[in-house]
Amino acid sequence: MTAPPSNGTLPPAAEVREVGPRDGLQNEAPVPLADRVRLVDALSATGVRRIEVASFVRADAVPAMAGAEELLGAISRRPGVSYTALAPNRRGAERAVAAGADELEAVVSASETHNRRNLGRSVEDTLGEITGIVEVAHAAGRPVEAAVATAFGCPYEGDVAPERVAGLARRLLDLGADDIYLGDTTGMGTPRRIDELLDALQGVGVDPASVRLHLHDTRGTGLANAYAALHRGVTRFDASVGGLGGCPYAPGASGNVASEDLVHMFEDLGVATGIDLDALIAAAHLAEEIVGRRLPGQVMRAGPRWARTADG
Amino acid sequence: MTAPPSNGTLPPAAEVREVGPRDGLQNEAPVPLADRVRLVDALSATGVRRIEVASFVRADAVPAMAGAEELLGAISRRPGVSYTALAPNRRGAERAVAAGADELEAVVSASETHNRRNLGRSVEDTLGEITGIVEVAHAAGRPVEAAVATAFGCPYEGDVAPERVAGLARRLLDLGADDIYLGDTTGMGTPRRIDELLDALQGVGVDPASVRLHLHDTRGTGLANAYAALHRGVTRFDASVGGLGGCPYAPGASGNVASEDLVHMFEDLGVATGIDLDALIAAAHLAEEIVGRRLPGQVMRAGPRWARTADG
Repeated sequence: MTAPPSNGTLPPAAEVREVGPRDGLQNEAPVPLADRVRLVDALSATGVRRIEVASFVRADAVPAMAGAEELLGAISRRPGVSYTALAPNRRGAERAVAAGADELEAVVSASETHNRRNLGRSVEDTLGEITGIVEVAHAAGRPVEAAVATAFGCPYEGDVAPERVAGLARRLLDLGADDIYLGDTTGMGTPRRIDELLDALQGVGVDPASVRLHLHDTRGTGLANAYAALHRGVTRFDASVGGLGGCPYAPGASGNVASEDLVHMFEDLGVATGIDLDALIAAAHLAEEIVGRRLPGQVMRAGPRWARTADG
Repeated sequence: MTAPPSNGTLPPAAEVREVGPRDGLQNEAPVPLADRVRLVDALSATGVRRIEVASFVRADAVPAMAGAEELLGAISRRPGVSYTALAPNRRGAERAVAAGADELEAVVSASETHNRRNLGRSVEDTLGEITGIVEVAHAAGRPVEAAVATAFGCPYEGDVAPERVAGLARRLLDLGADDIYLGDTTGMGTPRRIDELLDALQGVGVDPASVRLHLHDTRGTGLANAYAALHRGVTRFDASVGGLGGCPYAPGASGNVASEDLVHMFEDLGVATGIDLDALIAAAHLAEEIVGRRLPGQVMRAGPRWARTADG
C-alpha cells in the first residue's frame, strides 16, 4: 500500500486495542490455554500496542477465562506491547498485579439493572470496588482503564440517559481511573448515540480524544459508529480479532467489531493504526481455527480492497 | 417510536429503493415465480416507493430472472409505488415497456474489463445500447436511471479513477438518462472513496443530491459509506431486503446492504424513509424463507435498537 491519502478533518492516527483473547474468547466455549497463548502471541506480532489478554474472575464463574496467571506467564512478552487484564474486584486486581498485567480494567454498568445482573451488586457498590482496584493497581504502578458498560443502551432498561453515562465517567476519573471507555455491551450504538454521548462527556469536562470506544456490530452500525466517532476526535477503540465473541446463542450474529475490519477502514481513511493488516488477518484465521467456527469478520474473507487495486 | 431527533446537518429524508427482487434474487438459486410475486407484494406494503422487480435479460443467460413479463403481470400494483426493471439492451427495453415497468434501468461499467466480462461488449458500445434504451423508454414516457457499475473499484482493474466514473455519469445524463446511480459492484466502497467520487461528480456539474448510491457491505463499511454519503447530501440509496444477493459461493459473505439495516440507521439518525421497519423486517424473514438460507441482515435478527428502549 502506498502512502495513505490525506484525510481532511480526521485524526492522523488511532489506537486499536485488541480484546479478542479476553472479551472475545470469554463468550466462546472454553479453548485450551496453549491456543489462547498462541493467539496472544500472533496478535502481539501485528503491531497492536495493547491486548486485553485475561480476566481475573473466578474460574467457576467464567470457565473460558480460567488460568489467567498461567496465561500471563506463558505468553511471549513483546517490548512496546501492553498486556491488560480485567479485574472484577480488589482480589482480582491483586491477582492481576501479581501475575504481571501491565494495565488493569474495571467495569461498571450505566444501567443499574444490568450492573446487578452482570456483577451481582449495585452501581454504588461497584464504584466502591473500583476504588479498591485503583488503589491496588496504583500501589503497584499500574494504570486502570475503567469501562462504563451499557453506555449505548441496556437490554433491560432501554436507553440510559447520556448524562448518566457521562456522570459515571466523571466519577470514575475522579476516583482515580486513568482512562475511560464506553462499552456498547449489546450493540445499541448508532452514530446519533455516539454524538449524544460525546456531547454529554464534553459537558462534564471529558475530552472525546481521551475516551475509548468499545463498539459492537450487532445492528450493522459498528464501522459507521467508528467513522462518526473519528469525526468527533475519538482516537482510541477496542476491537476483537475476527469479530471473536459474537453471541454464541445467535449463530452468526455479530458482537464485537472485527479488528481487521476496523483497521482496514481506518487505514483506507488515512488514519494510521501502526498495525500490519495482513498479519492481523492471519491472526483472525488462527482465531477461527482455535474456536472451530466461522467468525463474522468480513475483511478476513474478502481481503483488503487494495488487494484488488493497482496501488496495492 | 416517538418523533425522530433533530439530526443536525443531515438531510431530513432519504429514499431507499428496494432491489431484493431483482439484484438480490438474481444472485440466488432460482425460486418459483409465485414466491417472487409474494416478495414484491410484501415489500410494496412497507412504504417503499421504488422496487426493482425484474430484469429483461434472456432466460437462458440468467435463469433466476426468467418470467419478467409474468411477474409484472402478477404483482399487485400499489398506487404510489414505482416498479422498475433492468434492460440490458433495446430489445430488453421494448419488453420492459410492453410489460408495464414504470421505470427502466441501464448499466455500464466504469471498468472496461468488467464491462466486457459482464456485458460482452465495450463501454462505448454499451453507451450506444443505452442510447437506444433511453429512446424506447422515453417514447413510452418512462424514465431511465443509468448505473455506473464498479464505480468504487473493479475486481479486474482495481481502482477506477473517480474522474472516469464522473465522466461516464456525465455522458449518461447527456445521452438522456434521467438519473444516475453508482454501483459498488464488488464491495470496494469506503467513506474515503465516497468523498472522492462525489467530489469528481461535482466537478462535472452533477449534484450529490441527485445521485443514487448502490452500496455493498462486503468489507463491513456498508453503513459507514451511507453515513458518509448522507453528510455529503446524498438522499437516494439502493438496498436489498435481508441483504438478499450475498455472494452464494462465499457463504455468509455480504453483498448488498440490507434494506432494514439501512432504514434502521436512517430512522435513528432522524432521516425519514417513510418505510415501516417492522413490515420490512417481516419481508426480510419472508425472503429468508423463500431462498431457504440464512440472510446476512442484522436488524432482522437483533431487532431495532428502540425495541429495547423505553422510547420505543
